[in-house]
Amino acid sequence: MTKDRKLVEEITSMEEDFAKWYTDIVKKAELADYSSVRGCMIVRPYGYAIWELIQKNLDQMFKQTGHENVYMPMFIPESLLQKEKDHVEGFAPEVAWVTHGGSEELTERLCVRPTSETLFCEHYANIIHSYRDLPKLYNQWCSVVRWEKTTRPFLRTLEFLWQEGHTAHETAEEAQEETLRMLDVYAEFCEKILAIPVIKGQKTEREKFAGAKATYAIESLMHDGKALQTGTSHNFGDGFARAFNIQYTGRNNKLQYVHQTSWGVSTRLIGAVIMVHGDNDGLVLPPEIAPIQVIIVPVRQEAEGVLDKAHEIKNRLKNIVRVKLDDSDKMPGWKFSEYEMRGVPLRLELGPKDIEKNQCVAVRRDNRNKLFIPLDEIERRIPELLDEIQADMLEKARDMRDKKTYICRTIDEFITTCEETPGFIKAMWCGNEACEEEIKEKTGATARCIPFEQEKLSDYCVCCGEEAQKLVYWGKAY
Amino acid sequence: MTKDRKLVEEITSMEEDFAKWYTDIVKKAELADYSSVRGCMIVRPYGYAIWELIQKNLDQMFKQTGHENVYMPMFIPESLLQKEKDHVEGFAPEVAWVTHGGSEELTERLCVRPTSETLFCEHYANIIHSYRDLPKLYNQWCSVVRWEKTTRPFLRTLEFLWQEGHTAHETAEEAQEETLRMLDVYAEFCEKILAIPVIKGQKTEREKFAGAKATYAIESLMHDGKALQTGTSHNFGDGFARAFNIQYTGRNNKLQYVHQTSWGVSTRLIGAVIMVHGDNDGLVLPPEIAPIQVIIVPVRQEAEGVLDKAHEIKNRLKNIVRVKLDDSDKMPGWKFSEYEMRGVPLRLELGPKDIEKNQCVAVRRDNRNKLFIPLDEIERRIPELLDEIQADMLEKARDMRDKKTYICRTIDEFITTCEETPGFIKAMWCGNEACEEEIKEKTGATARCIPFEQEKLSDYCVCCGEEAQKLVYWGKAY
Repeated sequence: MTKDRKLVEEITSMEEDFAKWYTDIVKKAELADYSSVRGCMIVRPYGYAIWELIQKNLDQMFKQTGHENVYMPMFIPESLLQKEKDHVEGFAPEVAWVTHGGSEELTERLCVRPTSETLFCEHYANIIHSYRDLPKLYNQWCSVVRWEKTTRPFLRTLEFLWQEGHTAHETAEEAQEETLRMLDVYAEFCEKILAIPVIKGQKTEREKFAGAKATYAIESLMHDGKALQTGTSHNFGDGFARAFNIQYTGRNNKLQYVHQTSWGVSTRLIGAVIMVHGDNDGLVLPPEIAPIQVIIVPVRQEAEGVLDKAHEIKNRLKNIVRVKLDDSDKMPGWKFSEYEMRGVPLRLELGPKDIEKNQCVAVRRDNRNKLFIPLDEIERRIPELLDEIQADMLEKARDMRDKKTYICRTIDEFITTCEETPGFIKAMWCGNEACEEEIKEKTGATARCIPFEQEKLSDYCVCCGEEAQKLVYWGKAY
Repeated sequence: MTKDRKLVEEITSMEEDFAKWYTDIVKKAELADYSSVRGCMIVRPYGYAIWELIQKNLDQMFKQTGHENVYMPMFIPESLLQKEKDHVEGFAPEVAWVTHGGSEELTERLCVRPTSETLFCEHYANIIHSYRDLPKLYNQWCSVVRWEKTTRPFLRTLEFLWQEGHTAHETAEEAQEETLRMLDVYAEFCEKILAIPVIKGQKTEREKFAGAKATYAIESLMHDGKALQTGTSHNFGDGFARAFNIQYTGRNNKLQYVHQTSWGVSTRLIGAVIMVHGDNDGLVLPPEIAPIQVIIVPVRQEAEGVLDKAHEIKNRLKNIVRVKLDDSDKMPGWKFSEYEMRGVPLRLELGPKDIEKNQCVAVRRDNRNKLFIPLDEIERRIPELLDEIQADMLEKARDMRDKKTYICRTIDEFITTCEETPGFIKAMWCGNEACEEEIKEKTGATARCIPFEQEKLSDYCVCCGEEAQKLVYWGKAY
């Protein structure tokens, strides 16, 4: 076993170098690769299969909440991008510009979409006339481009895959309901499907989206104590509607502006899965998004009857779970390590002795527990086990996050905590942007969100000591 | 009824102006819309739902034939595009160039992918080392950009959605098998799912893909007698492998080049569906790709029990077919026209008299046939009817194509046929590019393909009168 393990190249341990551990997993689990295009990644089959499972689950949730998919152009004319003042200020510095088509120079530059508010707004202005046309609940799956200086696969790349929902409503109340509904959809998706617990809350003015009235986010905590903004949902009020003149005739027969929202999550979710669940043997995937949920590894497969039995088991399971049988000529120990690296939730080992006893050995990836399952019961026990793994992974992630969540009442405590035990910091805030700035300068931490679940830790702002308005989650972020 | 019909704006008849008929359907069936981005389209919810059904069916066929999905960057550095000589000559004149990222000018221009051979080749050179790494059977769903001068929704746009398969194999034979396998997949998909009959064949040297050794295509015929290249499959031989140095250690322990293929279909398929099946009342969708397969329209819905019964029927059908009940306050005649425009394959009308007789009225979109279905039998009869519609639409399309397929033995016949009765022209060819050129100049028709099913119509080339080598399908093309 020890000798076999070395056949699979080892990865850097996360305690030694977290960033290197992360990229080792990305490369060795064959999730993504680099290309000659700076800052862009190739999403490899295994990584893309995870993305497809994420898409499938989310898309179903979007459709269940009444949303329809559309596809907008990938280019935005410069003049269109400039229509909403805050929005262009936020995005113009980080877009890619197309200046030539074929051999001709364009009369107006086109940017490659960094996000598509402006295109949706232009379209909405064309197709919304009456309250009967509302609400519009659109979503788009696509890739977007932001000209980042430093990049890391899945976390921050020049181009990334995502979905962006864009909706238009009759009233401010409906837009606010939608904004929070989609935040809930994201939170539910993260907890149920990705097994990642999240904090739901509102962004501060400083951290909100360019052009939004209010931005809400779900925030999660990685193994290294850094926070990851995992999804955002924005209420635009009627700001974009005024800039793009999206008016409709209301029930009162008067022309009025629509109220809009947008919300998005991206392949960044895969980065979160790696950094929340992974360990020093590689990826650990929650069963819901595992392209292979069960790997069958025959032991002494040259012995009579072993491969036949392995195939029989695979065939019995294949319509129940995503199962693969590795009957290649590699050694079992190599296979064990390989599928551990790839985070396959459950391994079934099957050798001549197991067959004699009419059982197989099941080894869980998440906690290494080993159990013997009578072969007669696999159709019932394997899906149950996967459900247990899914539930236990969420609990384990929640424990990890809770252990790395600290309460600070003074700025000195705050500074020490940031340095010594990185994690979420819960601290009171006066609501003043100057304090937010100062905290960032002194600690490197930013306001992750003002959580919906408020507590009163003290009466005073952790920074200035003035009267506190809100509890805030702070942290260093990806 | 006559009065109601006018509530839905009429479309131009196809006999009057085929191009306008086409764009009327695209707009009024709400498939796509224009944006302020020249030549780019917005795919609206109804159009995108059709695309999703196309994707779902094709993706399943790709996976069943062993292919995996990946995602490559959307940008290609200019130097990478230039690596294969024929390829760059074919594509460089029609790409969009990114020259600036944020405020900085790039040291090397990036083109927005017009197709991704170069990116796949670069990746394959990195990940293929041994024959054990082969074959690589990759596919990608994405959008690509080609800087076209004149554009039409779905048929030719600056940006379009497509899939591109890219594979690498040990031997030339395997690459050729794959090329033809995927052409068969496309042909089967077109006939079974889109109800569009296709001619399978090889492209002439003049019409083949930039960089390919051989290009194969499926060609279909539109209502106006024009041909549409509906899908292509290319065998690259080892040309790209040599340009990109994709070598592997073979079973004989020697370094050798891989053999590659690529194949693609696009949202153009939606254009084909419109132009093969549509009529003067709008779109006609084959049930397999109809987002709504059955529309229930209550008649006298204010009468007691009608809406209840309509809901009951919808609930009984909803897990069997894609069904919608329109219980809005619009008049039934308006609804009839609306869903005819949208090409919904089957309409169920249900009024008080029908309920009395325990029946509903089913009206087929494809042939207007009306039949009465006992309500007790809908779970069995409705899916049967949809299957009949699907099969009949293929037959009808085949008849249409066969009627518009002509045999020409002289160039004069060829010229007259092209002018008077546009369609496919079957004519013999000497294999000389000069004749291909001359035919194009004289008739406007190009060689669509050299069909696999060869016939000998005469011994002489239709153009020069020299010895004929091949039967060719000719036609004016989109």
